[in-house]
Amino acid sequence: MENQFTLTATLHKVDVLRHTPSGIPVLEVVLQHNSWQEENGIPCQIKFELPAKIIGQNAQAWQHKQGEIVTVSGFLAQRSQRIFRPVLRIQHITEYKG
Amino acid sequence: MENQFTLTATLHKVDVLRHTPSGIPVLEVVLQHNSWQEENGIPCQIKFELPAKIIGQNAQAWQHKQGEIVTVSGFLAQRSQRIFRPVLRIQHITEYKG
Repeated sequence: MENQFTLTATLHKVDVLRHTPSGIPVLEVVLQHNSWQEENGIPCQIKFELPAKIIGQNAQAWQHKQGEIVTVSGFLAQRSQRIFRPVLRIQHITEYKG
Repeated sequence: MENQFTLTATLHKVDVLRHTPSGIPVLEVVLQHNSWQEENGIPCQIKFELPAKIIGQNAQAWQHKQGEIVTVSGFLAQRSQRIFRPVLRIQHITEYKG
């Protein structure tokens, strides 16, 4: 059952690093995406902001990187049980090299 | 600038096929996803429903396939300019073979 999302985006907002009760670092960020995609042969401009979460060592490594352009991959998940507000749970993050 | 999402999901709701003013078929669907993913070494169950749109020949081909399990890929886009409510714009859709 696949759920794999890869996105190039700016680290538009980066929260203060926090830790779970068991001591695991968690970093909440907002990704800002802007690209051209093709749909049925027609190019269209896509712009959005998407909340995302980094857990573990990467959370520490990226806490001071606001404004950087990154390529992230991970899976999409629900924020709450009730309404689907998506959050990208980041498994891999690298600097975007153009 | 990547924006590529692959998801295995049930075609939970399938709207009536409509056409754009220029005659292109459009099918709006709701995908229901349920899987286990791994985050920082810990498995977690992921469940959500995500609106999606199919444009072109695939729209016609899938209009009577409610309830089928599919693997789709495409790009995530915004529904409206104001608030980010995501919709998956499907570029490829195939029957899920397990």
